[in-house]
Amino acid sequence: MSESNIVLPALRAIEVNLLWFVLGSAIIALLYGMYLAWKVLKAPQGSQAMIEVAKAIQEGSAAYLARQFKVMGIFIVLITIALYFIYKAVYVNDPTLALGIAVAFLLGSCASAGAGYVGMSLAVRANVRVANAALTSFKKALELAFEAGTISGMFTVGLGLLGATIIFMLFKENAMKVLIGFGFGGCLVALFMRIGGGIFTKAADVGADLVGKIEKNIPEDDPRNAAVIADNVGDNVGDCAGMAADVFESYEVTLVAAIILGASVLMDKHFLLVYGAGASLMALKLIIYPLLVRAVGVFASIIGTWAVRVKESDNVVNPMKPIKRGFWVAAIASIIGFGAVNFFYLKDPVTHQPDWRFFMATLSGIILAVVIEWITDHFTHTENRPVKETAYASKTGPATMLLTGFGLAKESSVWAILAIAATIFASMKIFGGDIALAAYGVALAGLGLLTTTGFILAEDTFGPISDNANGIFEMSGANKGAGARAQEIITKLDAVGNTTKALTKGFAIATAVIAAIALFRSFIAEAGLSQIGIQLNVPDVFIGLLIGGAVPFLFSSILINAVSKTAFFVVEEVRRQFREIPGIMEGTTKPEYYKCVDIVTTSAQKELIGPALIAVCTPIAVGFGLGAAALGGYLAGAILVGQLLAVMLSNSGAIWDNAKKVIEMGAHGGKGSDAHKAAIIGDTVGDPFKDTAGPAINPLIKVMNLVAILILPMLLMGLRLRYSMGIVVVCVSLIIFAVWLSKREGLLKEE
Amino acid sequence: MSESNIVLPALRAIEVNLLWFVLGSAIIALLYGMYLAWKVLKAPQGSQAMIEVAKAIQEGSAAYLARQFKVMGIFIVLITIALYFIYKAVYVNDPTLALGIAVAFLLGSCASAGAGYVGMSLAVRANVRVANAALTSFKKALELAFEAGTISGMFTVGLGLLGATIIFMLFKENAMKVLIGFGFGGCLVALFMRIGGGIFTKAADVGADLVGKIEKNIPEDDPRNAAVIADNVGDNVGDCAGMAADVFESYEVTLVAAIILGASVLMDKHFLLVYGAGASLMALKLIIYPLLVRAVGVFASIIGTWAVRVKESDNVVNPMKPIKRGFWVAAIASIIGFGAVNFFYLKDPVTHQPDWRFFMATLSGIILAVVIEWITDHFTHTENRPVKETAYASKTGPATMLLTGFGLAKESSVWAILAIAATIFASMKIFGGDIALAAYGVALAGLGLLTTTGFILAEDTFGPISDNANGIFEMSGANKGAGARAQEIITKLDAVGNTTKALTKGFAIATAVIAAIALFRSFIAEAGLSQIGIQLNVPDVFIGLLIGGAVPFLFSSILINAVSKTAFFVVEEVRRQFREIPGIMEGTTKPEYYKCVDIVTTSAQKELIGPALIAVCTPIAVGFGLGAAALGGYLAGAILVGQLLAVMLSNSGAIWDNAKKVIEMGAHGGKGSDAHKAAIIGDTVGDPFKDTAGPAINPLIKVMNLVAILILPMLLMGLRLRYSMGIVVVCVSLIIFAVWLSKREGLLKEE
Repeated sequence: MSESNIVLPALRAIEVNLLWFVLGSAIIALLYGMYLAWKVLKAPQGSQAMIEVAKAIQEGSAAYLARQFKVMGIFIVLITIALYFIYKAVYVNDPTLALGIAVAFLLGSCASAGAGYVGMSLAVRANVRVANAALTSFKKALELAFEAGTISGMFTVGLGLLGATIIFMLFKENAMKVLIGFGFGGCLVALFMRIGGGIFTKAADVGADLVGKIEKNIPEDDPRNAAVIADNVGDNVGDCAGMAADVFESYEVTLVAAIILGASVLMDKHFLLVYGAGASLMALKLIIYPLLVRAVGVFASIIGTWAVRVKESDNVVNPMKPIKRGFWVAAIASIIGFGAVNFFYLKDPVTHQPDWRFFMATLSGIILAVVIEWITDHFTHTENRPVKETAYASKTGPATMLLTGFGLAKESSVWAILAIAATIFASMKIFGGDIALAAYGVALAGLGLLTTTGFILAEDTFGPISDNANGIFEMSGANKGAGARAQEIITKLDAVGNTTKALTKGFAIATAVIAAIALFRSFIAEAGLSQIGIQLNVPDVFIGLLIGGAVPFLFSSILINAVSKTAFFVVEEVRRQFREIPGIMEGTTKPEYYKCVDIVTTSAQKELIGPALIAVCTPIAVGFGLGAAALGGYLAGAILVGQLLAVMLSNSGAIWDNAKKVIEMGAHGGKGSDAHKAAIIGDTVGDPFKDTAGPAINPLIKVMNLVAILILPMLLMGLRLRYSMGIVVVCVSLIIFAVWLSKREGLLKEE
Repeated sequence: MSESNIVLPALRAIEVNLLWFVLGSAIIALLYGMYLAWKVLKAPQGSQAMIEVAKAIQEGSAAYLARQFKVMGIFIVLITIALYFIYKAVYVNDPTLALGIAVAFLLGSCASAGAGYVGMSLAVRANVRVANAALTSFKKALELAFEAGTISGMFTVGLGLLGATIIFMLFKENAMKVLIGFGFGGCLVALFMRIGGGIFTKAADVGADLVGKIEKNIPEDDPRNAAVIADNVGDNVGDCAGMAADVFESYEVTLVAAIILGASVLMDKHFLLVYGAGASLMALKLIIYPLLVRAVGVFASIIGTWAVRVKESDNVVNPMKPIKRGFWVAAIASIIGFGAVNFFYLKDPVTHQPDWRFFMATLSGIILAVVIEWITDHFTHTENRPVKETAYASKTGPATMLLTGFGLAKESSVWAILAIAATIFASMKIFGGDIALAAYGVALAGLGLLTTTGFILAEDTFGPISDNANGIFEMSGANKGAGARAQEIITKLDAVGNTTKALTKGFAIATAVIAAIALFRSFIAEAGLSQIGIQLNVPDVFIGLLIGGAVPFLFSSILINAVSKTAFFVVEEVRRQFREIPGIMEGTTKPEYYKCVDIVTTSAQKELIGPALIAVCTPIAVGFGLGAAALGGYLAGAILVGQLLAVMLSNSGAIWDNAKKVIEMGAHGGKGSDAHKAAIIGDTVGDPFKDTAGPAINPLIKVMNLVAILILPMLLMGLRLRYSMGIVVVCVSLIIFAVWLSKREGLLKEE
């Protein structure tokens, strides 16, 4: 921003009032979340057997999170201290700024962890209550599950908006720098939660399935399987806490990026020319607008979740209907809301006419959400051709089934990336090729995409709650006494939970990519590279691009191997218990569930250090080794490959999973047929794809972009020349250490 | 080149003499190839039964190639005509240039097809002779197989060098433009051969395995399997013809790129400053040098193939040893050769001191070859940890085996891309950051990498020959009469053939990527984008990058699905024959082999149209739709993702294949165990990865770069503005048509 001659004006009364309004809406979100929590906890818990199973899940989840927070804590504290001292050296004239960034980082990480923690701890309390409600009423069960999910959504948006607004009010013109720290804290926690949670959930799931379904031929969620509690805990730590932290940071960083890009328009000659005397005021409005869109999102999400209602008399046919209705209500409420903001506030300061281009850019984000949902739905829904074709290919065995699904998943990532490219293109067309505003437009699309975050997270958390409710129902033996209607209610809720989880997964990737692109634009703006450019014709930049593209490959490779390694240990433990503890198979003795929980908890914590180091150190090494422009190439490569890989991994898993469901519903011989066995293999391969490696790429690309922005002031200073070799050496050593760490304990221990 | 003030000087006597020398060495390569062909055909063919089996393979291969050439022919003729008329409009003042480009395109495609055809038709004649020789002598069998392989190598380098040199002598200062046409012809044919051959070989292989090994429990190459001849034909059309055409064009296009980049140094102010009065002469030398390196390669390859000799008394323990020795002889001979060229010819015109930087850049290509071979070997060799770990993971079933191999393959592509990044970095360091020379240096690295092409192709063609020899040995019943020693010889040759194939596959990808990067640099030089730059900060370029990255995903998705679809038809046909023709299982009646050959031939031809259209039309659509800079971003994205994907696909297939071999050699229960069954599934998934989708990405990225260079003159002219919308619409329609075409005949016909 140093090149700009024109500075932002001070906040006027209207902006101050609007900021208080935004702050108020953040508090409303938190209060509403607390109200729902009180309401959910008030609901009855059901029989003693159910409570016991639920308690085991609660204890496992709490134990896992405690360990996770301990490991993360060390990293967070170290980075907080490092940030303080580094920035004290950078901003010599303004020591409070260094303190602000460090504290903001700490608070951001706490907020992200908090959003995950609250969401999860209510989810593990809601599951048993939903199972109990399902015994009597579809209406109660569905609404309770959705309300419990909404708590997670409300805390995420509430904490995110509260933090951002307070920082903005405190630091004013320096808010951008401090907000980056806040976003980075959230992002890093999300990375840890995604990696750790992802390894936990899938190692437990795959391990449980390999012994249970394949070797012993017992059904899923059977209490005789020692890994079954770990599996249920995994749903919560992965899908619930991990997803909340991930979306929290997308929510946060798009806001940060929009504010940075809003401020950077003042460096653009074209913008100054067009807006003339009103330019600086317009830029201020562009900075406030993102916060207002967020506030609109709070109310839209609350209204949307209200709309998820069924009548007591309704049949149990399609629980997806009220949820979809809720989504559309939230989306339309958002559109009306930011249309109004655009109309009343975003006027040209000179002509006093509302500038609808900003509305259209924000709207394009909502359209992107719908398109991404449509693509995910087309490729992964059991009723559509891709899943049916994959199920059909199971007839010639697992190999053809895997190949068909893999090919289709690859195709799905092509359409997803084209949708994102189209959004960028639209932003460019909307602003008539004005690059500074087009970049801001991409951030607005991200804001639009995330307006309904509160609702989306409710939808997502609904998944593990209903999944767990089904688990508790089966494990507690409640299924034996209950009637056919209760069974139907719980099965339908579980199935719909799978769908909502899959949909939000596609959504999370899209938000991560758009957020990363917006951050990438902020990086360019902050680096002053808009003029010089990140030139692919410069060999350094091209090398950066190649390295950046390689990172998601290495990262996902390590995660996939971590899951198969850990699953192997789970299998050994479950086999040992079946062998050494008499009476498990007959159901007279209970297996030692906690041992499996312990194995996956320990392993997940060990395995997350390697990938986390890679995410943080690689951009630092490239930045100091090859310079800021090469780092730009690096980020572009990482975004491109990260997006393609994340969608491919997520959707291939979903396709195989649902192909298996199609067969289980009776196609091609149904349960127990050869096609079904082939499909189970496909499903198992897909598990770490869709729930570990795929989702972890989201925080990866965001963290790398944030690290790049954080080290920029140093790259642009003389510091680069003085210490860069040392920094590169340290980072490369850490990366090598990380790769070694992830390989240290291979399967071939005996050799 | 229009911006340059200084033009290249006319050829001096020394350059003219050197060109004749290069021409002579091309002719020597062809003559040596013919001599070897005569020698191989002279060898005895063995028993009547063996001749019969061989004849079936020969007929199948010839029938396939005839069909392939017919389909290609239509495309080639249409494009030749189009090129003529387009360039007539572009180069209004020089109509012979348009004719030259069109004819060169035609000749390039004929040369590429010819190299593939000669190599293959000798391979299918050599196989039976090798099988016969193996009955009596290890020495004879190995040397005969390698000599037959060398024919393919000699024809490829001979035709490639002959064509390029003649064009250079005829067109002089316009040679670059005509050479691009020649390279494009070769490239397009390679694309067709890779796609068609890849689908053919793997559909036949997977189809044969699914019924034979898995359903009927009969061994590989069993004559009762109706798809067995198709499978053997596939080895030739895929590995032999496809690989030859692919490497032919890498060979060609690195030469073209080096010449273009050699000429483009004159546009570089820094170069002019450093070389002063000698600059234009030095540039001329830089243009001649690549041709000389190629001539050196001819002799080095011939010497290398001579060194593949064993003593009659040698044990059959390791046929890999003489081949490795041959490679090192060829590599060292090359280094000495181009060292000498550098010393005597590449002197600074003013100081008359040899400029060793060019030697070092060429040498870096040889080093890259060694590193890539080392990476491929580390990840895919049966003796190394990755394959062993994957085999071990089979103990818990196919899912863990697939996951382990997939993770490791992803990791391998990270190291491969880092090796390529290091080569670019080395070139930059060698030339002290002089970007024009650094770009030329990357092309030199490509030349170095491909110096031993003659030898490498010999190694590669050795693979299908020994594979087929084993097949003929088994199918003709010769194995029953022969002794243990003959059996051992033939099995060892087959195993080593698999290794050489895998090694050359890694090599082919590296050459393709380096060639593509060199072409990308030529694109930048021709587009005059060195100054303006391909700026990733411009949204158009970023969109280009995203689309470019998506293409290899779409392309490989279509190919993988084409294989699983076609394999399905093969399975149905083999099952039908077992069902309807009595006596097959007992061995009293022969199955109708030709029907399976026919199914895969027809299907491969149908399926290749879609991917070919995508390869040609997408860069045109991006170029005319978004402009030259965005097209640059597109190419960078395609190279990045193409490289990562190609290595991952190739190596995952090799890892699974070899993990199966480890088990077959006795590990984890050996043949018939559960681990073995799991490994067969892994191997089947890997088949289309490593032999269809992976290798086809090589010509894909080269074709797209060449198309980009070919349309550049139009993009840079006013034409872009006049017709671009129409061109974009036509191309996008063709792409949509291509996607539709590849989906038209899904598995779910009944629905």
